[in-house]
Amino acid sequence: MKRRVEDLAVFGGAPLFAPALPTGQLDTPDVEDYIGHLRHIYRSRRLSNGGELVQQLEAALAEFHQVRHCIAVANAALGIAMLLQVLGEGRSGEVIMSALAYRGVPHLAKWAGFSPHFVDIDPELHTLDPQAVRAAISDATRCILSLPSFFSPGHVDDLCRVAESRNIPIFFDSVDSVACTFRGRPTGGFGDAEVFSLHATKLVNGFEGGYITTNDSELAAILVRQRDFNQPGADPGVAMRTPHVLGLNGKLNELHAAMALLSLARVEGLIERNKARYDAYCAELADIPGITVLPYPDQGRERHNFRMVVIRVDPEWPLTRDETVALLNKEGAVVRAYYSPPVHRLHPWSVEVVTPPMPAAERISKGHLHLPAGERVSLSNIHELAGLLEFVSARGDDIARSMRGARL
Amino acid sequence: MKRRVEDLAVFGGAPLFAPALPTGQLDTPDVEDYIGHLRHIYRSRRLSNGGELVQQLEAALAEFHQVRHCIAVANAALGIAMLLQVLGEGRSGEVIMSALAYRGVPHLAKWAGFSPHFVDIDPELHTLDPQAVRAAISDATRCILSLPSFFSPGHVDDLCRVAESRNIPIFFDSVDSVACTFRGRPTGGFGDAEVFSLHATKLVNGFEGGYITTNDSELAAILVRQRDFNQPGADPGVAMRTPHVLGLNGKLNELHAAMALLSLARVEGLIERNKARYDAYCAELADIPGITVLPYPDQGRERHNFRMVVIRVDPEWPLTRDETVALLNKEGAVVRAYYSPPVHRLHPWSVEVVTPPMPAAERISKGHLHLPAGERVSLSNIHELAGLLEFVSARGDDIARSMRGARL
Repeated sequence: MKRRVEDLAVFGGAPLFAPALPTGQLDTPDVEDYIGHLRHIYRSRRLSNGGELVQQLEAALAEFHQVRHCIAVANAALGIAMLLQVLGEGRSGEVIMSALAYRGVPHLAKWAGFSPHFVDIDPELHTLDPQAVRAAISDATRCILSLPSFFSPGHVDDLCRVAESRNIPIFFDSVDSVACTFRGRPTGGFGDAEVFSLHATKLVNGFEGGYITTNDSELAAILVRQRDFNQPGADPGVAMRTPHVLGLNGKLNELHAAMALLSLARVEGLIERNKARYDAYCAELADIPGITVLPYPDQGRERHNFRMVVIRVDPEWPLTRDETVALLNKEGAVVRAYYSPPVHRLHPWSVEVVTPPMPAAERISKGHLHLPAGERVSLSNIHELAGLLEFVSARGDDIARSMRGARL
Repeated sequence: MKRRVEDLAVFGGAPLFAPALPTGQLDTPDVEDYIGHLRHIYRSRRLSNGGELVQQLEAALAEFHQVRHCIAVANAALGIAMLLQVLGEGRSGEVIMSALAYRGVPHLAKWAGFSPHFVDIDPELHTLDPQAVRAAISDATRCILSLPSFFSPGHVDDLCRVAESRNIPIFFDSVDSVACTFRGRPTGGFGDAEVFSLHATKLVNGFEGGYITTNDSELAAILVRQRDFNQPGADPGVAMRTPHVLGLNGKLNELHAAMALLSLARVEGLIERNKARYDAYCAELADIPGITVLPYPDQGRERHNFRMVVIRVDPEWPLTRDETVALLNKEGAVVRAYYSPPVHRLHPWSVEVVTPPMPAAERISKGHLHLPAGERVSLSNIHELAGLLEFVSARGDDIARSMRGARL
């Protein structure tokens, strides 16, 4: 425990956590189970390209999400680029997307031949504001890319209605929504498609990888060809009917499918442990003034994966959000600012893309941070972290003065 | 052995090879060695994102190719798209490339924002004809993408001279040129960069993956950022200086680096065994009229990897190239037509891209095929396959008549 301000790592004290506490899920199924799969891959002599385990994984994920088709891809970013390119039909134009998004997303729009068109969010759900989307639609709009927040799929029905009425494709970057519901329906089947991630930091761990879910059989067939350089397969006429589709190597390897299958089988346990960590944070931080754990709403009616723990830093808190991030990182809590800055503030979009004011995205991006979460964080780690935050709260004026002084 | 025409699998006989013989290298290092790496990955808790093994692999490959920088990427296709996008500076225009190329390559040009401009090949080397390149250059040219053939890096010096004199970037899609030389210099350091593959079918097996080599430190730094969503790292000003660079997830995972490290250590043995197979094919097929094994030229002065065995089918041979492919595939020899059709004949390029006549690419693409090769092909397999081809040669008229009759 820290007793004096000088004990803080930011002032040269020993870090509270070593090894550091990450924010990712980092599920690790038993290594022996993984080795079993690996021996099978070796024996089967099928090291890549649509092997047996990828097919098993696709079937398991389609069932898990209750959708007709699952297309495994090398990573979620490629899945997003693929969907944008296919759904936008290879024509230049705009993709409507949230200003509160991962910094890579507008790059993917450009790869697919589009300009990003950023719109503001609903400040309650942190997801696309349907009113703002409606106002942003023009003849240049080729696609709507909706980004669910970690605690809500957003205004799914409203957005799909807007998209349908204007005959614009819509899909969901659902990397944080595995095993969640909207009005009781599981994610995976909304809009034209949804994209999920199998990166090690996500709920289901394939070491790396991603997948697309859809109920549209024609779209699924196009994506299967697209991820393998748009090979026509047994249908040589297909390239004529879909001349705009650009192929690439988006295939998921057997090594990742093996891990993802093991992790998927553990998903109920992962969610249970996530919930226990989240509940512990809520209890431990409840009485600390100026920080608030963002709630997972409607827990009676909706299903959540409780993967992330995000806190809001309010004016009563003695440090700024960025000072808090810096202080905690020094202590070995690898906390991260939450969607900051908003993507429309990043170069080159801040220069290339004209945007209206986005007060909600600006505000949310300034005041939140991710706390350590996932399988490498124990309940006693959470207790220790809460103790640290209590200490910061109690000695806040001294700490703020020293941190600001140190920077002068 | 086949004694009667009816014994051929194409007419219902039992296939000669079961399991089938592939054309890929398919190196399989000892599974226990791979498992050792895997346990280390688990223990190190670093499952992805620039881990220790990726760093080791990059250092080993830079040394192997005698270049300053190696940037591991998720696959070679992404590496090509990345280089096109960076070197073309995000401006629309054209990429000059060979009409004799893998069908995916023009797609990658489009992803990067360019149109492919196809040019004809040198019929001896199967690589870009410098004269044709010179004629194709215009104000719209943004990049030259040179594709070495499996037996020659091509007119490296000429092409680099053309590119330099016109101030156009040039790089090499060197997926088939690992461990080869041009005028005694190893591949890896030519042009602005070279791209290699770690796919299971290539010389060095990472199950999947690829890498870029370059001596240009600024380009290397850009690519390292680009493959990780263009994160600025410790240099926030970098996005300002390179506003055109589009990021993506192009990272290679530790699982692939582990395999590639093991396979790279075996590369001398792989090449020796490839050479033995190639020599066996040359000896066994020498007296069969109408088929010719393409030679690896200048073996005294240049280094080759002998990974592929390609034959030319001449008019004395009783079957067409495509009939030969069909017959051998039925026998379990998974042979493949060599670059056929040429890419400018494929939809949508045949419609979208105006090209001059390309007699050399047309001719080469009609008359060649890959024979089974790599670690899963034994010398006795080669002997059996030669016996089959002798039988086809001896009974060619009957076989041709039956195959053509069967199709009527």
